[in-house]
Amino acid sequence: MRVIGIDPGYAIVGYGVLEYEKGKFYPVEYGAVTTDAHTDFQMRIKEIFLEVDRIIKRTRPEALAIEKLFYTTNQKTVMQVAQARGVILLAASLNDLPVYEYTPLQVKQSVTGYGKAVKKQVQEMTKNILRLDSIPKPDDTADALAMAICHGYSYKSKLFTQIGTTK
Amino acid sequence: MRVIGIDPGYAIVGYGVLEYEKGKFYPVEYGAVTTDAHTDFQMRIKEIFLEVDRIIKRTRPEALAIEKLFYTTNQKTVMQVAQARGVILLAASLNDLPVYEYTPLQVKQSVTGYGKAVKKQVQEMTKNILRLDSIPKPDDTADALAMAICHGYSYKSKLFTQIGTTK
Repeated sequence: MRVIGIDPGYAIVGYGVLEYEKGKFYPVEYGAVTTDAHTDFQMRIKEIFLEVDRIIKRTRPEALAIEKLFYTTNQKTVMQVAQARGVILLAASLNDLPVYEYTPLQVKQSVTGYGKAVKKQVQEMTKNILRLDSIPKPDDTADALAMAICHGYSYKSKLFTQIGTTK
Repeated sequence: MRVIGIDPGYAIVGYGVLEYEKGKFYPVEYGAVTTDAHTDFQMRIKEIFLEVDRIIKRTRPEALAIEKLFYTTNQKTVMQVAQARGVILLAASLNDLPVYEYTPLQVKQSVTGYGKAVKKQVQEMTKNILRLDSIPKPDDTADALAMAICHGYSYKSKLFTQIGTTK
């Protein structure tokens, strides 16, 4: 089963594509889409859409895993992130890719087995699970890979929430 | 000058396309894109994108006017609206359409000349300015037309805020 994990944003979108087979994960491709702060928001949204669309077409995942929308205190940023998340969901839809949502708690639990794990622990486990030499950079990429791992484990045990059920 | 005004949403997206010439507005097309509440959010986003894209291609506006993002107390809804707004901005970008943002206050002021006008007054003035027999339904369509009128007046007097300046 091949999954793309995405950490949405408008300045940096982390992504990680993993193949999950017989209990083992194999990295296919991972990285980050970045947009220039000096570019109009409208253009940044377009770059994100076009690049995510290209990544999906190139790596051909069967599912997209993304964090459930939640609130932070930085309201301005969260609204811009939500708009970027909209075009990422659109890229999935237009490529007939089902979307699955997980909370940060679900990611921590499935990657480290511990819901109160700190970011560094999740990143270390992500590195170990994928047999990488170092923690992928930037953090957004590491987070996206952890999200993809979470989907692999959860999907197998049917613990996932498909986006339709959350309305 | 031809402008499309949009009232974003995920259940109903109001739109109104107006031609503005020598101080007079001429309705080109107006209505609403609606999505089914029983459909996955991911599919609703896709329908909105495809339909707005079709409207833009059919009516060929030179600018898109949309409400500035702002907060409401209904956090869940506002996040879904922001995601829908993202794909509307994308449809504009992919069609090389510049986006202009206005606050509700700017719309009220430019349509009625009075910043404290109530919704009904804005709708009545919109009807009169466009020489229509009745207030367009649903409210989302009337709001979108008021937004387009606001852009026509503001653009002429250079009172607009292009989206790039707001990041």
